[in-house]
Amino acid sequence: MTVLPSVSYSITVRLDIPAAGGSVSRLTAAVEQAGGIVTALDVTASGPQRVQIDVTMAARSSEHAGELVEALRTLPDVAIGKVSDRTFLLHLGGKIEVTSKVPIRNRDDLSMVYTPGVARVCLAIAANPDDARRLTIKRNTVAVVTDGSAVLGLGNLGPLPAMPVMEGKAALFKRFAGIDAFPICLDTQDVDEIVETVVRIAPVFAGINLEDISAPRCFEVEARLRERLDIPVFHDDQHGTAIVVLAALTNALRVVEKELSDVRIVMAGAGAAGTAILDLLVAAGARDVVVCDEHGALHADRPDTDERLCAIGRRTNPRGYSGDLHGALRDADVFIGVSAPGIITGADVATMAPRSVVFALANPDPEIDPQEAAEHAEVVATGRSDAPNQINNVLAFPGVFRGLLDAQSREVTPELLLAAAGALAAVVGPDELNAAYIVPSVFHAGVADAVAAAVRGAAVAG
Amino acid sequence: MTVLPSVSYSITVRLDIPAAGGSVSRLTAAVEQAGGIVTALDVTASGPQRVQIDVTMAARSSEHAGELVEALRTLPDVAIGKVSDRTFLLHLGGKIEVTSKVPIRNRDDLSMVYTPGVARVCLAIAANPDDARRLTIKRNTVAVVTDGSAVLGLGNLGPLPAMPVMEGKAALFKRFAGIDAFPICLDTQDVDEIVETVVRIAPVFAGINLEDISAPRCFEVEARLRERLDIPVFHDDQHGTAIVVLAALTNALRVVEKELSDVRIVMAGAGAAGTAILDLLVAAGARDVVVCDEHGALHADRPDTDERLCAIGRRTNPRGYSGDLHGALRDADVFIGVSAPGIITGADVATMAPRSVVFALANPDPEIDPQEAAEHAEVVATGRSDAPNQINNVLAFPGVFRGLLDAQSREVTPELLLAAAGALAAVVGPDELNAAYIVPSVFHAGVADAVAAAVRGAAVAG
Repeated sequence: MTVLPSVSYSITVRLDIPAAGGSVSRLTAAVEQAGGIVTALDVTASGPQRVQIDVTMAARSSEHAGELVEALRTLPDVAIGKVSDRTFLLHLGGKIEVTSKVPIRNRDDLSMVYTPGVARVCLAIAANPDDARRLTIKRNTVAVVTDGSAVLGLGNLGPLPAMPVMEGKAALFKRFAGIDAFPICLDTQDVDEIVETVVRIAPVFAGINLEDISAPRCFEVEARLRERLDIPVFHDDQHGTAIVVLAALTNALRVVEKELSDVRIVMAGAGAAGTAILDLLVAAGARDVVVCDEHGALHADRPDTDERLCAIGRRTNPRGYSGDLHGALRDADVFIGVSAPGIITGADVATMAPRSVVFALANPDPEIDPQEAAEHAEVVATGRSDAPNQINNVLAFPGVFRGLLDAQSREVTPELLLAAAGALAAVVGPDELNAAYIVPSVFHAGVADAVAAAVRGAAVAG
Repeated sequence: MTVLPSVSYSITVRLDIPAAGGSVSRLTAAVEQAGGIVTALDVTASGPQRVQIDVTMAARSSEHAGELVEALRTLPDVAIGKVSDRTFLLHLGGKIEVTSKVPIRNRDDLSMVYTPGVARVCLAIAANPDDARRLTIKRNTVAVVTDGSAVLGLGNLGPLPAMPVMEGKAALFKRFAGIDAFPICLDTQDVDEIVETVVRIAPVFAGINLEDISAPRCFEVEARLRERLDIPVFHDDQHGTAIVVLAALTNALRVVEKELSDVRIVMAGAGAAGTAILDLLVAAGARDVVVCDEHGALHADRPDTDERLCAIGRRTNPRGYSGDLHGALRDADVFIGVSAPGIITGADVATMAPRSVVFALANPDPEIDPQEAAEHAEVVATGRSDAPNQINNVLAFPGVFRGLLDAQSREVTPELLLAAAGALAAVVGPDELNAAYIVPSVFHAGVADAVAAAVRGAAVAG
């Protein structure tokens, strides 16, 4: 697919150029000829002969950004100064901070915020532990927990390189749901140690958001934490993705006028996201799902060493299909890929049933170029922000946790996930629905509120 | 000692009273007669016959606050409405929050804060882990860690009741040193588990502040964490207190014109604070210190089962004194109590050397009423905010951590603690110094900066 210049590869270059007319237009022409887009020009100093100007431009990649600088360097009588990367500038010093909600101006304030006044608050909580939700930050605070074993699609980078993602997640929690989230990046990848550590730090939090923990360890970590803790535990890579996929599929099937209980669904990928999507689709009423991994379709008779894959084979694939992904797609109504880039082609999609739906969600490069898929499928979605129908977890997790915290929920149930998906789908009104708009934008006002209200209604309060 | 009404026992009572003149003055008279102080009157609704008025008043204790309400209830034609406790109101929902430092207004912002732009930042840290201090919150972030085993002077309340203190501490970190601190309240009191848990969550933090962990476990927790971690570990109840005591003693000895190396010092209490104070006094040059616990003076020949107490007995008490605290005080120049309320009297202080110094730091009730001590001692200090010379850790820990973080220090050394104490003492200028002003107010501008500068100079950078 064609990669367009993006602000996430945006640089600002300080230039010293002749004041004479035409200098600036030569700059922008050079950038555009090299495939970049000038997004801002700021004159930072000016004199009779020379002008200092900051040029901000979007590139396609880090390498491409370097090419844009070289293109500027070839211009006559232009001196190149400092080159700044906008994304790195934004991350300098981190993206979140801890601030005080109470004034500390004088000794009176101090005696209420801290000793001696705080002692009475401590004693009140000791007498009634439930008061911690009233008199501390607990009720609105979520831990964003990772071991850094599956950072984005980048692999096992460990806890420090995971921090920018966890901080970003915390920033999104506040932006979209008013939740105070704090990153917990663990210096261990041992399941027992992860579980013990999270259990021990749990008192401060009213919810645990697991993030970027690799499969299959993530399943055991989540299951054991749910058993040990009296606060909800939610692995966003699993359930956040599943909620958005089910919501998007609900609306896609409305567009193509099919029923979830009737359609043939083919999935590629049986990892964290794939397993959770499968579970939620089945809970929602899907009956004919064939899950493929890199060895082909999972079915009841496939000899797998992994008990989890065997179980999926037994409870899906009602027609006992045992071939590969390409064969599975023949006459299928829906393809959902959470696997690897470029594993299917337009020819595969052409063999699907009429009015087919293709969700190619591998990140950053999907299972099929969405433009190629759209030649044969009626509805196409990806994880990308530069194509229609972006399947983005930001649509789900803020509202889900807002609802869980408001309800003081102690657990995450399938009913709750279904309610969240239903509410998210319903944000797209009948008048708005079409093949290029099956999910709302993450900036659509009311998304988090709608999801939160549904979750509150479905939550099991403590 | 006389307890005065305090804002930390402040309540607001909503009253419905007759509009006729004199009603309000009858209210304030009733409160004052009952020993309270009216600090605010707010009319919240008014009509021709009746007035609704919020009366805020300071009491001496929770019980006394109840008595004030009862005193108001006896007034003719007064109806009592909602009674609110100002301290509890301040703590509702907790005292800190996590906020985003970056704007998330549109898709461009999102693509830099989160995916896909954040991926490049993660990869940069993976390539160079030290960049975590540049590109994440790590460089300015401190964990405030407790197991709730010694919450203030209230005892072993556990992690939830400790939260208001840890949040307060985080608020003070921000207020006085611009540091982002987050409470970690552990659901374990096992030394091994505390150490393992803190080691595993350490990647996010550039410093660990241990808080309200009971002795003797706190010594082992701190020692083992210092060995395991490459960031500074500071138990504030020990070293924060020791820094402020040494600073205060430095200035007190200037007032009484004595030298630290010459004076006889008697300490009461060999717990967390006592041990750290002793260590720092010795490091600063004190040579004649006698430490007493509830069984009397520690000396080289005392048969103790606790090896820590034996070691103190061997390295202090050069004259081999083996009697009780009262005898130890005879001819002593300095008394430092970090023990229990009311264990010495004015008669004991009268036996001390001329121009004696008494630090009675037990909280909330000191070893001796400071007024009684002042009849015989020249300089008296306590931990209380309602007497002169308050020994308050807030004078030390914000600046200490500011300096540690700025220097990217990996450890806390005795030299660093001495430097902090020296800088704190020097905040009180020669022109300002007197027996009632040996330490600055916590709101004195420049305290944290002065301490931080000294710590930066003494810190061992990583």
